[in-house]
Formats: sequence, C-alpha cells, structure tokens
Amino acid sequence: MGVVDDRISGLAELGQQLRVDAVRASARAGSGHPTSSMSAADLMAGLLSGHLHYDFEHPQRPGNDRLVFSKGHASPLLYAMLRAVGAIDEERLMSYRRLGSDLEGHPTPRLPWVDVATGSLGQGLPIGVGMALGARLSGSPARVWVLCGDGEIAEGSMWEAFASASDLGLGNLCAIVDVNRLGQTGPTRFEWDTAAYAARIGCFGWHTVEIDGHDPAEIDRALAAAEAEQGRPTAIIARTRKGKGVAAAEDKEGLHGKPLPEPEKAVVELGGVRSATVRVSPPRPSEPRRRGETMPLALPAFPVGITAATRDGFGKGLEAVGESDPDVLVLDGEVGDSTRTAGFAKAFPNRFVECYIAEQQMIAAAVGLHTQGWIPYAATFAAFLTRAHDFLRMAAISGSDLRIVGSHAGVSIGRDGPSQMGLEDLAMMRALWRSVVLYPCDANQAAHLTATMADLPGISYLRTTRAETPVIYREDELFPVGGSKTLLGSPHDRIAIVAAGITVSESLKAAEQLVQDGVPVRLIDAYSVKPLDAAVVRQAAADTGRVLTVEDHRPVGGLGDAVLDAVAGRVPDVRFAKLAVHGMPGSAGPAEQLAAAGIDAAAIVHAAQRLLA
Amino acid sequence: MGVVDDRISGLAELGQQLRVDAVRASARAGSGHPTSSMSAADLMAGLLSGHLHYDFEHPQRPGNDRLVFSKGHASPLLYAMLRAVGAIDEERLMSYRRLGSDLEGHPTPRLPWVDVATGSLGQGLPIGVGMALGARLSGSPARVWVLCGDGEIAEGSMWEAFASASDLGLGNLCAIVDVNRLGQTGPTRFEWDTAAYAARIGCFGWHTVEIDGHDPAEIDRALAAAEAEQGRPTAIIARTRKGKGVAAAEDKEGLHGKPLPEPEKAVVELGGVRSATVRVSPPRPSEPRRRGETMPLALPAFPVGITAATRDGFGKGLEAVGESDPDVLVLDGEVGDSTRTAGFAKAFPNRFVECYIAEQQMIAAAVGLHTQGWIPYAATFAAFLTRAHDFLRMAAISGSDLRIVGSHAGVSIGRDGPSQMGLEDLAMMRALWRSVVLYPCDANQAAHLTATMADLPGISYLRTTRAETPVIYREDELFPVGGSKTLLGSPHDRIAIVAAGITVSESLKAAEQLVQDGVPVRLIDAYSVKPLDAAVVRQAAADTGRVLTVEDHRPVGGLGDAVLDAVAGRVPDVRFAKLAVHGMPGSAGPAEQLAAAGIDAAAIVHAAQRLLA
Repeated sequence: MGVVDDRISGLAELGQQLRVDAVRASARAGSGHPTSSMSAADLMAGLLSGHLHYDFEHPQRPGNDRLVFSKGHASPLLYAMLRAVGAIDEERLMSYRRLGSDLEGHPTPRLPWVDVATGSLGQGLPIGVGMALGARLSGSPARVWVLCGDGEIAEGSMWEAFASASDLGLGNLCAIVDVNRLGQTGPTRFEWDTAAYAARIGCFGWHTVEIDGHDPAEIDRALAAAEAEQGRPTAIIARTRKGKGVAAAEDKEGLHGKPLPEPEKAVVELGGVRSATVRVSPPRPSEPRRRGETMPLALPAFPVGITAATRDGFGKGLEAVGESDPDVLVLDGEVGDSTRTAGFAKAFPNRFVECYIAEQQMIAAAVGLHTQGWIPYAATFAAFLTRAHDFLRMAAISGSDLRIVGSHAGVSIGRDGPSQMGLEDLAMMRALWRSVVLYPCDANQAAHLTATMADLPGISYLRTTRAETPVIYREDELFPVGGSKTLLGSPHDRIAIVAAGITVSESLKAAEQLVQDGVPVRLIDAYSVKPLDAAVVRQAAADTGRVLTVEDHRPVGGLGDAVLDAVAGRVPDVRFAKLAVHGMPGSAGPAEQLAAAGIDAAAIVHAAQRLLA
Repeated sequence: MGVVDDRISGLAELGQQLRVDAVRASARAGSGHPTSSMSAADLMAGLLSGHLHYDFEHPQRPGNDRLVFSKGHASPLLYAMLRAVGAIDEERLMSYRRLGSDLEGHPTPRLPWVDVATGSLGQGLPIGVGMALGARLSGSPARVWVLCGDGEIAEGSMWEAFASASDLGLGNLCAIVDVNRLGQTGPTRFEWDTAAYAARIGCFGWHTVEIDGHDPAEIDRALAAAEAEQGRPTAIIARTRKGKGVAAAEDKEGLHGKPLPEPEKAVVELGGVRSATVRVSPPRPSEPRRRGETMPLALPAFPVGITAATRDGFGKGLEAVGESDPDVLVLDGEVGDSTRTAGFAKAFPNRFVECYIAEQQMIAAAVGLHTQGWIPYAATFAAFLTRAHDFLRMAAISGSDLRIVGSHAGVSIGRDGPSQMGLEDLAMMRALWRSVVLYPCDANQAAHLTATMADLPGISYLRTTRAETPVIYREDELFPVGGSKTLLGSPHDRIAIVAAGITVSESLKAAEQLVQDGVPVRLIDAYSVKPLDAAVVRQAAADTGRVLTVEDHRPVGGLGDAVLDAVAGRVPDVRFAKLAVHGMPGSAGPAEQLAAAGIDAAAIVHAAQRLLA
C-alpha cells in the first residue's frame, strides 16, 4: 500500500484509483453512476491532495472543510475518495447500494462524512451557501467545496445560490462544475461551452476559472486560486469527459446511471486496482465553535380577552427566543413585515438573513446553517413554502433540524385572493418524514410554540394567521407537542368539534350557540396537528359518537384527515363531518371568506345540527 | 370623454390616468398595491399605445398579443388599463377586491383578459415562455409581453425562464422589468442598479434595453425595439419610482400593499380623474389557429400474463395519443429515458420540448402552452414534481388543463434511495383544487389512463412505477375516472383490501395466501385515487367490516386517507388498517424495499390477519 507523496505527479494516479473504485463498486452493486464519477475523478483527486482540509477521523471537528456532492449521483466517486483516505475499507466500499449499507445510491448523512442528503439536483450549492455563511458566522476558517454537475446548472435554485453567494461575499465557497457535456438523456444545453457557464456565473459576481478537468496541474492551480479568494466565491468550470479513461464509455450517450458494460476490462484499461492512501491536509487551525450563552426565556404576554394575530405572537415570541439563545438565526423571504420576523431583524440584525424572494435558497440556507451548529427559523407565506417543497423533502432525508413558519394561512387572509392563501401547506408539511406541525389559535399559544420549536429535532412547522383572533389562553399556559386543549366539555357532550388556528374562535362562537340550543359540546383545540393528541380525540369520539372537524385548508391532508386517521376504526359507531375549503376563493373580507368557504361559526352550527339529526 | 390621439404626447397623460385609477380603486377597496402600480403606469401606457395588438372585445382572438402581469400585485394598474381601453367601466373598476368581483387582489382568469393567475412571484415570465413558444408553434404573429417586478428577479424560476427563452430563440417575448427599487420589506438587492440586471439578463442571451421608465419617448423606443427583434427575447429594464407622482408615496418605504394615506389629495396631485379611452392596435393579421386533425386512437396492447412497467404503458400510450392528436405536446425535465417520454420524442420531435433540469419552467411552459390551445403532458420523476409545487398550485387557480406524469413513485424504485422516491406526491397532487389522480397497476391500464387524461379538464396526474408488474387487464378493458376494479370478491368476503399501483400485485399475492387459509377477500384496484370510487369502497366496507389499504407512499394524504375519507362515519362498525411507508428507506432492491416498508405481500397477509383477529 503506497502513499501518494508527490502531489501533482500523483494526482493522475489517484484519479485512476478513484475511477477504478467507482467502476468496481457500481459493477458489484449492479447499478449506480460510474460514468458521472469518472468525469470528476481528477477534480476530486486534486481536492483531496492538498486543498481539502479535513480530519476524517473526526468529521465533526469544527475547523473541517465541508465537501458537498451537489451531483449526488456521483456517489461512487465519493465512496472511492473515502476509501482513498482510509475512512472506509474495501469491504465497505463493496457494500454500495446494498440493503443496510450506509453507502447509499445517493449520499445521505447516515455516513458521518456526509452533512446533507443530495440526489435531487440543484440543491447542494444552495445548501453550500448556508454552510459557508454558517462557517463565517462561527468564525471558522473552514472552506466549503461543492461538486456540481453541468446539467443541474439549469435549475433555478442554482442561480438563487449564485446570486446569494456573491451578495453575501462568500469567499470561502467554491463550486467545482464538472462539465462532462452529457446529461441523463442526451447532451446538456451548453455541452462543452465552458465559456457560456463562466460568462453567466461571472456576471453573477463569482470569480470563475475555466480549466481542463483532467489536467492535474490546472486543477491544482484552480483550487489554489479558490483558496486564495477572500471576498468572492469561486467557480471552477472544468471541461471533462463522462466515462473518462474507458474507451467504451468515454463521452458516450446511453450510459448514464448504469454500470459499465465490461467492468473487469475497464479496470484493466484504467491500470488495475490500486490501494494508495492519500494524506489529507489537517483542518485549518481554529477554536472550537462556542455554543452561545443562553439566558432565561422571557416570552411576551398578551392579555386574555384582547385580539391579536398569531403572526404577532410568533414575531414577539421569536424576539424572546433570540434574546434567550444567541445561536438562533432567522431567514426571511422578503416578507418579514408580513410574517413578523421584522422585529427580530431589528433587534438582532447580525442574526437575520435576508434571502430576498428566493424561497428555495431560504430553506437551503437553513439546512446549511444547521450543519454548522446554528438554530435556524425560516419564514414566508405558507403558500410560498410550496416553492421549496423539494428542499423540505430533502431536508427530511438529511435529518435537518429546521423551524419553518408559514404565515397568511387559509382563506381568512381576505382580499389578496387565492394566490396568497396557504391552503395546501398542512398536507405538504404533514407528509414530510418525522415532521411536527403546530397551528396556534391565539397569540400566547403562538409565542409558546415558537419557543418550543427551538428544541425540536427534525422539521417543525408553525402555521400562523394574518387576522387577529381572541386571546383565550393565559401567558403561563403550557402547550406540549402532541397535546391539545379541551375548551369545552362534560361527560354529557353530544358532539365533539375539533378545530385549530382561526377555526377555534369560530368554533367557540358556534359552541356557544349550540349550548344555548341545549346541545352540550366538546371543543378541542388541536394546536398540535402532528402529532395529534389521538387519545383525547378518541375519547371525545367515544363519549359523543359525533366528530366535526373544521379547518381553513383544503379537505385533503389537513386536520380533518389527521382526526379521521386517529379515530376511524378505533372507536365504534362514530359519525364524522369535515369542514374545509372546497371551492376556489376570490377576493373578499376575512369574515366573508370564512362564510363563503363554509368554515365560520354559522357553518359549524349548521354542520353540527346535521350531524346530530 | 377624450381620445388619446397623439401617441407620445398623450402617454404621460395616460400614465397619470392609470395612476389615478389605481389609487382610486385601492382606496375604495381599502387594500391593494397602488404604489407598485404607479411605478409601472408609464410603461403600460406606452404598451397600450401602439405596441400591444389586442382586440379587447374578443380576448380569445388567436392573433391577440398576450399580456401577463408577472408582478400580479400590480392588479390595480391592470384594471385601470382595462378601464382605459373601455373593457370595464367605472363601476366595475370600483368593485376591485370585493366579494363576487372578478377584479381580484391578484389577477385570475375569471377575467376574460387574463390568461393565467399570478401573484406568486416569479411565475409570469416562465409561463410567458410557454405562451411565446405556443404562439410560435401555432404560427401566430402574437407577441407576449410580461410585466415583471424587480424583486421577483431573485426567484430562480426567472432564471430558468431567461435561460429557456433565449435557448428557444423566442423573439416574440418581451419582459418589461419595473425596477422601482423597493420590495415589500425594504430595498431590493440591486435597488436602481439597472446595469446589474441588464448584465445578467444579457449574459443569458437576451436583448436588453435600459431606460428611464417614466420617459414616454424612451419607453416607446424600447417597446419598438422589442417588436423589431426576431431571434432573441427582449428585456426592457426600466428604472422607475414606486408611488411615482405622489410626493407622500414616491420612493417611500413602508407603503407596499397599502392604499395611499390620503387618496383624494393624491388624485388631485396626479391631476384629477380622467376618462380618456385608448384605441389599442388591432391584432396582427393571422389565420385562426386550426385544431389539428385527429385520427382514431390505437393504444398499445400488452399481453396479459407478461410483466411490464406502467411507465412503459404510459410511454407507449403517449405515442399513441400523439399519433392520434397532433395538438398533443410533451415536456421533459431531462429524464425522458426514465419516464419513457423518449419514445414520443423520437416519434414527434417537433412536439417535444426539452426543458432540461428545470421542473418549474417545465410546468410553467405547460401552463403557457395550454393558453395557446395545445394539449401538454409534462413528465419527470414524481419526487421532482415537488420542485414545481407552487406552479401546480397556481395552475389550479388558473384553471389550466395539464397532464402531469410522475415516474419512479415509491420505495419500489429500489437502490437509488430516498432522494429519487416519490413518497409525498399523492398528498401534493390530491390537495390541488379539482385535481384528478390516477395510479395504474399494469401497463394496459397505464396506456388507457394516459389517453383518458387528454380530455380531462384541470390538472390530472398519472403516477407510474419503475419496476415491472404483471399485466392483469386485457387491452380492451375500460378504466373510467372515478371507477375501480374489483379483482376478487364474493358476498362472503371477510376483509376488503384496497390497493393501487405496485401494491395491487402484492395484494393479489397476499389475497391468494389468505384465500388458501380460508379467508375470502375482496380486492379493489383503486386506480382512480381521486376521485375515488367511493360507492364501491363503501359497499366493500359494509360487506366485510374490515378495510385494509396498502400504498407505496407516506401514510399522509394518499390512498389510505382517501379511503378513510370515503368510508369513516358513513359505514358503521368498520375496522381499518393502513399500510404505508413510515420509515426512511435506504438503498436496496425493489422487493427488499417493499418488505422493509411493510407493504409487500407478506406484510399485507400479516396486517389482514391482525385485522381479522
């Protein structure tokens, strides 16, 4: 087992080793992307040899550089690199893509050297922006290297990242673009026109370097140039050949995502199996990042009986959380005055990241910041979070701890109309893996839940309302995740109403009417939509035999479905009715909207009467 | 009532009229975006006066230009324009944002002069790309004008549009960028640096013109320059002032989305109410677009008993649909070999649009093409459709007829891992307004449903599977939307299994086992997930008292929830069990994945036994 000593002269040799291992692992697995790995092998050989500063024995060491495979399908190359640095052995390499192996088809943080899951293209670079920002905010000397494909440059999210990174002056970020000319189905838009990439990325304020991606000296110089940059991010635009080194595969269409046809022959053509070990440069000297000193949390208090918007409860709660915990960061999609993150921005301008109207980059930055130890909250209109759905989906795979806030939920926003109404957000957020979905009905509850989110693992979501609603809870009330509040109830209740958010106050009005009419009502505030307080809801169903759900959301995937899922088949003889937004709203006032959608107090009374009939 | 005769000298006057009307309408409504309208008023005055070719009495006239307000919040300006051309009167203008009015907070096609809903920023230009392409494909001389905000330029989708439009050589497209310096919460990234916009957009291959957006002569010249372009799209980058013309509002922060503080005074400052009528140029001479001549549909036939992937059924079905109907277009996100649109691409290259890896642009182009009379199908991996969720949400508001196909659904894709698995797509697509969700289990069914979609209004979604499944239906079987197939059943069934897609074949195996064990089983293939065949499912629940659902999808928002919604509370004494994907898959073979997720035949047998116990 040799050691690659002379950096430049050994690079070509190391590149071949990486190719051989990518070919072998994919052949063994019977699937994978060897050709996409082979194009970038020399680039990664160069990075490993003198430019990446990383302690593979301690992947969490704070001074470590970060490496993101934005082209996640080139995972065989990543795993070949791990073998070359001695992090994994031959046997583990050969477990690629097998049941139970952490060497997955696309990298995930099941591997300790992988910070974020990739494989949905166009995500690694936007996340890298967050990482680079997080490193800078932490005072870390770490650099962030992102291996990008040429095909993914077509994703708009990449341009959000290019724009953000230069705007933020992220000199510690380097995108290495593997221009291998071929996408999955055919040639990319620009094929080998590296000048086209360089011109566009350069126009976006990046330092760009065009190189031959198979020339070790050019690669080394470009990486050194990136390291020398302070104020601007660097893009290395590398002309490469897909399947490089194997004549039967090199620059050939139809071989994307497939093992090489004759892998043994290919290995021979590449010079055979090698087992050189690379000595990677140690992390640049740095202090371990210090967790900021926390202070006692002093949440705002809204007097019971006034009206206040839950978005204001969130905004004030967020300021309190920011005061209490200096590691909390807030990201905005240029709607901070509406979501009410503006107060935090004013109080803590250094911990507020304006992402402008680029929701994908906002979520990606949060994912990246989380990997650097920060506690990010990201807020925009609930409706516009759909823009970042794929980033949220991937963040769940990454196991990111994110706090997402969607304001202006539901028809109750009023006159702005359906484009601004979050009506599908509960379905989207509930379907995410291990997500928590919270939906406060008053400002004190909103503030409490905002603080609760700081400590939650995984993706948590707070749904807030534009309109003011009555404050019904004292400021010292507690709202555990998975809990609920029974606002009305007796052993004689004849119907249970389950509401959340804006429909709680409507349900209170409706219940008053029903009680006046002699119908005892159980009213449950299901502020924890996921996990739902299933025990309380089931008990209510068992006690009353009639369950009515009311939500300012589409009838699919929201509160009503959560209740059905908890109760149906588990409690005998229960009748259900689900009130939700079935039509397409237009412009109208909030009360008119609630009435038109059939989710206001009058509609609730009517539905209850039908259910009781 | 005067008539604006002298074009240039009247432009400033018309601009003031548009401002006055925007101010008045917003004041009357008590909400709206007058300041964002005032900045663009001179630009739109110029467009109306000699450059827009449009017959407002016949908005569907094929030669009509198209005008899209990508900055949809400037709707008061649009409505002021409609009054200026005589399309609406004073009373209708004053209905802005009121209940029942079609002058909504953000424009929607409830108004006959509006083709697509806007209001989620960054969507109008990508849709304009589809419109311009559709016009060109139709041989129409129409031009597409898109009024863009400066804030929305931060959206990645805009850069997908810039890249696509130049790549497609859309000389008939013009973006008019209203650079008013102020976003919602504060200054935009580039404020008045129009050169920064021009440099970036120019690098993306557009003809760019920087102008003073309040100088009528400059506006007129720029619009004429756009009209003179043939091969390149044009971007007019116009420096403007938000709230222009009213000192209390002009270039002031804190006034976004609010009526002017003293509207009567503002109207006086703007010179008072006017009622000039603009004579708009008639549409450029053109033949009405001819609906292509359709041929009888000849669907492929897969022999019963073989195995074939539903994605292949879709691909072959799509070719047949393309053969039958020359108005069918197909859009690809650079995965045509995987989704199986590659066959259509080969057969009908002129009706195949390669959108590269830009899913937002793909869906937006489909929306735009639909407005031009085309029948678009758009396909990518189900997982990556989440990238375009906001575009799908807005397409529902637009009332677009779109056929969306998501391949590689579920864990059964195998070794590529969770990033490539569509596990939340049913929840996303079912929650969309008036959507239809179809999920075939065999190739013949897939082909039939593909053809059915061509005639469906609204957004229809076909979910396909990578793996091969047994062909169980003859090619002449019919599969109506809202229907189902009962594959096994007798009056004595003790349990009903409801499956769709890949879980149908697993359920068939499980049912065989259960029947062998003496348990008669009803098995329903719910290929129409939305609308579900509620009658059949309810009858099965009533007959058996036990319903087991099985889906290759997250437990939220999919088939199981659809069944619960149909049955719970409507049929007494039913026990339910829902099998779905609860964990986070890794890499493994398809059968291993189905087993690990607990949705294979063995898991179904086990769950049925528990339900029967």
